[in-house]
Amino acid sequence: MLKIALGQMEVIPGRPDLNTNKMLIMIQDACNQHADIIIFPEMAVPGYLLGDTWEQSSFLQDCEDFGRQIIDASQNICILFGNVAVQWDKHGDDGRVRKHNACFVAQHGQLVATRVKTLHPNYREFDDTRHFFSLRKLALERKQDIETLLLPAKVTIRNKEYSLGCIICEDGWNDDYDVDPIAALQANGPLDLIINLSSSPFTLGKNNKRNRVFSRQARETGVPLIYVNTVGLQNNGKTVYTFDGFSTVYNRMGEIIAYSQPFTETLDYLDLAIKTSGRDLPPISIPNDFTIESLYQAVNYGIRKFLQSIGMTKVVIGLSGGIDSAVNASLFARILNPENILLVNMPSKFNSKTTKDLAAQLAKNLGCLYTVMPIEESVEYTASQISGTPVTNLADGRQFNFLVSSFVLENIQARDRSARLLAGIAAAFGGGFTCNANKTELSVGYSTLYGDQAGFLAALADLWKHQVYQLANYLNTHVYEREVIPQAIIDLVPSAELSFEQSVDQGKGDPIIYPYHDYLFRSFMEYWNRATPEDILVWYSQGPAVLEQKLGCQAGLVTRLFPGPREFIEDLERWWRLYTGMAVAKRIQAPPVLAVSRRVYGFDHREAQNSVYFTQKYLKIKHTLLSGDR
Amino acid sequence: MLKIALGQMEVIPGRPDLNTNKMLIMIQDACNQHADIIIFPEMAVPGYLLGDTWEQSSFLQDCEDFGRQIIDASQNICILFGNVAVQWDKHGDDGRVRKHNACFVAQHGQLVATRVKTLHPNYREFDDTRHFFSLRKLALERKQDIETLLLPAKVTIRNKEYSLGCIICEDGWNDDYDVDPIAALQANGPLDLIINLSSSPFTLGKNNKRNRVFSRQARETGVPLIYVNTVGLQNNGKTVYTFDGFSTVYNRMGEIIAYSQPFTETLDYLDLAIKTSGRDLPPISIPNDFTIESLYQAVNYGIRKFLQSIGMTKVVIGLSGGIDSAVNASLFARILNPENILLVNMPSKFNSKTTKDLAAQLAKNLGCLYTVMPIEESVEYTASQISGTPVTNLADGRQFNFLVSSFVLENIQARDRSARLLAGIAAAFGGGFTCNANKTELSVGYSTLYGDQAGFLAALADLWKHQVYQLANYLNTHVYEREVIPQAIIDLVPSAELSFEQSVDQGKGDPIIYPYHDYLFRSFMEYWNRATPEDILVWYSQGPAVLEQKLGCQAGLVTRLFPGPREFIEDLERWWRLYTGMAVAKRIQAPPVLAVSRRVYGFDHREAQNSVYFTQKYLKIKHTLLSGDR
Repeated sequence: MLKIALGQMEVIPGRPDLNTNKMLIMIQDACNQHADIIIFPEMAVPGYLLGDTWEQSSFLQDCEDFGRQIIDASQNICILFGNVAVQWDKHGDDGRVRKHNACFVAQHGQLVATRVKTLHPNYREFDDTRHFFSLRKLALERKQDIETLLLPAKVTIRNKEYSLGCIICEDGWNDDYDVDPIAALQANGPLDLIINLSSSPFTLGKNNKRNRVFSRQARETGVPLIYVNTVGLQNNGKTVYTFDGFSTVYNRMGEIIAYSQPFTETLDYLDLAIKTSGRDLPPISIPNDFTIESLYQAVNYGIRKFLQSIGMTKVVIGLSGGIDSAVNASLFARILNPENILLVNMPSKFNSKTTKDLAAQLAKNLGCLYTVMPIEESVEYTASQISGTPVTNLADGRQFNFLVSSFVLENIQARDRSARLLAGIAAAFGGGFTCNANKTELSVGYSTLYGDQAGFLAALADLWKHQVYQLANYLNTHVYEREVIPQAIIDLVPSAELSFEQSVDQGKGDPIIYPYHDYLFRSFMEYWNRATPEDILVWYSQGPAVLEQKLGCQAGLVTRLFPGPREFIEDLERWWRLYTGMAVAKRIQAPPVLAVSRRVYGFDHREAQNSVYFTQKYLKIKHTLLSGDR
Repeated sequence: MLKIALGQMEVIPGRPDLNTNKMLIMIQDACNQHADIIIFPEMAVPGYLLGDTWEQSSFLQDCEDFGRQIIDASQNICILFGNVAVQWDKHGDDGRVRKHNACFVAQHGQLVATRVKTLHPNYREFDDTRHFFSLRKLALERKQDIETLLLPAKVTIRNKEYSLGCIICEDGWNDDYDVDPIAALQANGPLDLIINLSSSPFTLGKNNKRNRVFSRQARETGVPLIYVNTVGLQNNGKTVYTFDGFSTVYNRMGEIIAYSQPFTETLDYLDLAIKTSGRDLPPISIPNDFTIESLYQAVNYGIRKFLQSIGMTKVVIGLSGGIDSAVNASLFARILNPENILLVNMPSKFNSKTTKDLAAQLAKNLGCLYTVMPIEESVEYTASQISGTPVTNLADGRQFNFLVSSFVLENIQARDRSARLLAGIAAAFGGGFTCNANKTELSVGYSTLYGDQAGFLAALADLWKHQVYQLANYLNTHVYEREVIPQAIIDLVPSAELSFEQSVDQGKGDPIIYPYHDYLFRSFMEYWNRATPEDILVWYSQGPAVLEQKLGCQAGLVTRLFPGPREFIEDLERWWRLYTGMAVAKRIQAPPVLAVSRRVYGFDHREAQNSVYFTQKYLKIKHTLLSGDR
């Protein structure tokens, strides 16, 4: 029987000092509980998402020193922990000192083994290959097999030797690689335990898949598997990730016999009979991960931790009376005290009484600080300053004046609200202001740069509009358990209210048709094989029902929205041009986005500000469809 | 004797249609000139920096189709060109269809050979490992040697067989790798030519190094080497790269016998006697690359191509009377017609007559459009709206009013200029407005978000302040050949003029001491081993002269600026906190930066918004220094 402690700790990225202190406390606790083994996650000492901080030698030296403190603390317990392993006399492909993402095994105050990560993810937000030298590269360099290099770690506990298969995160997700780390470990003799140290960010639905994959691994190898993941928040600058922990133990049948609470720092203990490989423990059921509840949990945790990480305690939120700002306000109001949240309604002449009243009602429901600052006068001032000040051509001395069109005026309003008022108010309040954009808007740049796209965090910018509505309902029903977001806000037609053409009272609103475009943009953005207009047009030409099924939108919608191919194509090209054009330029200057989906704008979705492109095949299908249309 | 055409083409990223058309025209020209071989750069068909566009199957299909058109055009000429090679039935490490960065060799209308890039750069801005499957990975997968896989391409020209060693960009920069592609090629028998297809961005001074490295390769192998590089502009979103071409031919002695004009699309011809391997051609000298002239060329080219690429023809520049906006205005005025450049002076009460007059003088010298729009009234309006509108606590009904401090007012001014005025004017003008920030400011966030940090392009944000001055002098002396930038602007103390504390007439200005901080920040940012406060303090404690030498700043400066360790450390910590703290948050929302240095903010310098950190050793040295200070 082994008593195993799962150190599901919150890792503070770039703070080996704080992380080590935390680990030492947990080790002390585990020793007091007479645990045999304590397991910490991947990169527990330095943190995982550090950008190019890995290029600082003095930082690496510190991580080594702190790692030694952990090893020293292993007098009475076996410790497994993630840290960077530096090979000062070798270099990586970039010519800098060689670094491994490694699992350290310590016992009796000594380092027993160091195990290097074999598979380095290099997709989505992951940058392992940039910073670390993998076991695969070592194998190539030494002209050896992975099997020769990937040995189990042997530890003796109460006179019995145990063979531990130590792998790190991606090593357990080897389906797409030509290397199988677990098989390589097993080729070196029977294992008693497989231990996966992870630093795996939350993605909606990922744990369901992880449980399938890891459960299969335990079953197929006949070895119990322990997955220990970090909690907390780490970021790549533009993209902010929550880490949900959810550490899980699978017995040799692949059944789940224990798990740690998600999004919670916790030190859990497990008594595991190696003889039975956990078969004596009853399997338990684990919550489904692909739910609005998980989504809420992640967003709530992400906002809370982000505020903590930047030391922000006061927040200003522009409240339009629309759904996005309402959901943002309701989310922040669960995290900060009401007196630290200032809601600001900034009406112009285009804002209806309806939305102004709804904003006030929501503010009242939340009991926060509230103020109304109209923008009418300042917008008029700006427009008349721009149109009223003559411009001189210094080459010939001639003068002219600008005209301020209604389109120009729309964006002046948006910037007046954010960059003039909210930024000024936030500074006076001693806090920051939120960006309330959603993923649908961000996809096509339906927002104004330095206007509604500005803010210190875009907490909902990884949620499609329909998910924002789901979250609104969830907040009312399950979080507040009352109608904190007025139902009228949920029922209202979405509108920017920047002109009389966008009057909510007349049922007019955004040019985006969310029930369709949410799913169209999702296919561009989140599909494994990114859909392009060519794919869309192929599906459309196979029949609108095929397209609807491929996109996952409501049946019958495409035919209802578009009388024929001409209208369909016009719409498709309009949004594709924006998605790959102006929206890219805007996203470059967008605030950090809180990640929840399997593809997030920012570091997870790398993009260049290139010219809009339609493939040859697209142009052919378009030609055919339009010829038939006449 | 072989007649070789060097197709130094401008590659438009993401536009295989346009690139292929260009290549077909060049091929036709080469056929007319009876060339034997034409060589195009790496990724000539698709472009190189495309972000995750590589995940679009329809795009890949198009690249293949266009590649076939190039192959078809090889009836009477041997063509070498870079393109993506897709293995539809295999997958990469990310599970997506496998893609190679490859060199295609075509002759007689047939594909003769495809050669896969062996070494994939995964540092700075390069992301090859994310998208492409390298020959190294192939070797590991097939358990074969690089030598077995990397064969020369054999082509027969006028009944003589030639052995071509085709490598791609990084393959020629193998010093830090455990694999040597050129040696592997040579292991397969004697080569007649080494050909390096590149897509290598301009970096100040890089060509000097490239000539040393490639010259050595030619000399050591005894084989002439032809380097063909692309021209044009490509970007990774936040970071914008110029490609300078500068294609070069080295004979087997390593002497340069030909090169193409940098930053110029050109099809150059070379008659090379393979028998003598170019020894019969006289060596020529190539311009030094590490000069202010190169810097100017790159910035000028970069701005011009960026405007072209986004289709922008009109630009608004806020003109403060300071050096940064003066240099920006003078640069843009060489690219756009004067009537398409609008210079705007936006004084507040803090702006001196000196700078207002200098702005007007510069505008006159440039002969552009000019206007003056004061911000005093609108700033006062904003301040009084924020302080004059009561805020209600909806929990208890109590009200309060904000105070607008002078610091808050400073930033209100900066945002008023950019987000209110410049953005509105640019929209009315039908163009964009520039961000005039330099690298020193960007390093420590000495700029206001949505204020002077805003704009469509930060053309000087990769130049340290002292380089901005150098460029100012260069513009006057060599570009305009007259004092277009008034000398008084160059002589003026740098100041943001956002308060009376920053009065230029009293010689007061920015808190940044450029002659020292330029070099301090450069050590944090551009040094191969990033300097941290620990390194700085180690050097400082070895004596100020050691530090000055390490930083490369003026001798005697450190002692002159800081009376003792206390002041030195206070300054160091102040800027380090900003550099790794608030400045990161600001850079996340910064405009695209035009790259010229070996380390650029943005995609080249990955960073997380993490907490500020000082190493243990730093804290110890600090303690020692401060104890001695008492």
